[in-house]
Amino acid sequence: MLGKTYDSEICSAARALELVGERWSLLIIRDALFSGATRYSDFRSLDIATNILKTRLDGFIESGIMERRGSLRNPDHFEYVLTDKGRDLAAVVVALTEWGDRWLAPDGPPGLYTHSPCGGQITLVTTCAHCGRVYEPAEVQVRPGPGMRIS
Amino acid sequence: MLGKTYDSEICSAARALELVGERWSLLIIRDALFSGATRYSDFRSLDIATNILKTRLDGFIESGIMERRGSLRNPDHFEYVLTDKGRDLAAVVVALTEWGDRWLAPDGPPGLYTHSPCGGQITLVTTCAHCGRVYEPAEVQVRPGPGMRIS
Repeated sequence: MLGKTYDSEICSAARALELVGERWSLLIIRDALFSGATRYSDFRSLDIATNILKTRLDGFIESGIMERRGSLRNPDHFEYVLTDKGRDLAAVVVALTEWGDRWLAPDGPPGLYTHSPCGGQITLVTTCAHCGRVYEPAEVQVRPGPGMRIS
Repeated sequence: MLGKTYDSEICSAARALELVGERWSLLIIRDALFSGATRYSDFRSLDIATNILKTRLDGFIESGIMERRGSLRNPDHFEYVLTDKGRDLAAVVVALTEWGDRWLAPDGPPGLYTHSPCGGQITLVTTCAHCGRVYEPAEVQVRPGPGMRIS
């Protein structure tokens, strides 16, 4: 985890990046979400140094994004399983993928997110709870919410 | 930019993270998107080292996420303005924020994304183009797309 990197930021995106903003974090979570990776050896298919992988997985346990299952007697058989909090990162991974598909995939998307029950294409849609679909980022503004600390 | 960090990955999310996955990158983009930050001094409200800020902004220019406007004679007046490619990162920032709001904001969301024209609450919705709304990450699977290189 990044620790106190963004400590001056009172912002949920900054807090999220403290937990998943380091190198490889979101790709490890991607593999857990969509490739069924649970064991240490599964994640080794990422071309990632073993010490970094271990640090990331331990960090995910600590921050409640994953839980460890298995026997202490057989650490090789540990499974790292996403919690609800971890699975809830799916939209972050999909949002990054969609952006990469649109801007960084000249040969077309390397992977297609599809809906298991029907095979339909998955898309993230920015919506307004009051009036419906939002088409332009310029239509979105941020105002202080209840968790904004007044200093 | 992370350069070749994820070079072994044939994945749009990994490609996206090469451009926006380093520390501070997405918070700089957040401020450009939602706080109207364009000048170097605007981004200095982030508690970020000047050399890192400069490296990030230069990287965004290089990767086409921002464009520089202004006169070379007055570099202090340069503006760093998001391109379409950069503005299209809004969903990534909103997805991170929503996750942080749900899991890391015990006092409530520090900021609220609202729809400028009507004041309604902004939400990202995961949808299936065929059958509608998707409720569980487990309903989403990835299959190879046209840009998957066969080696």
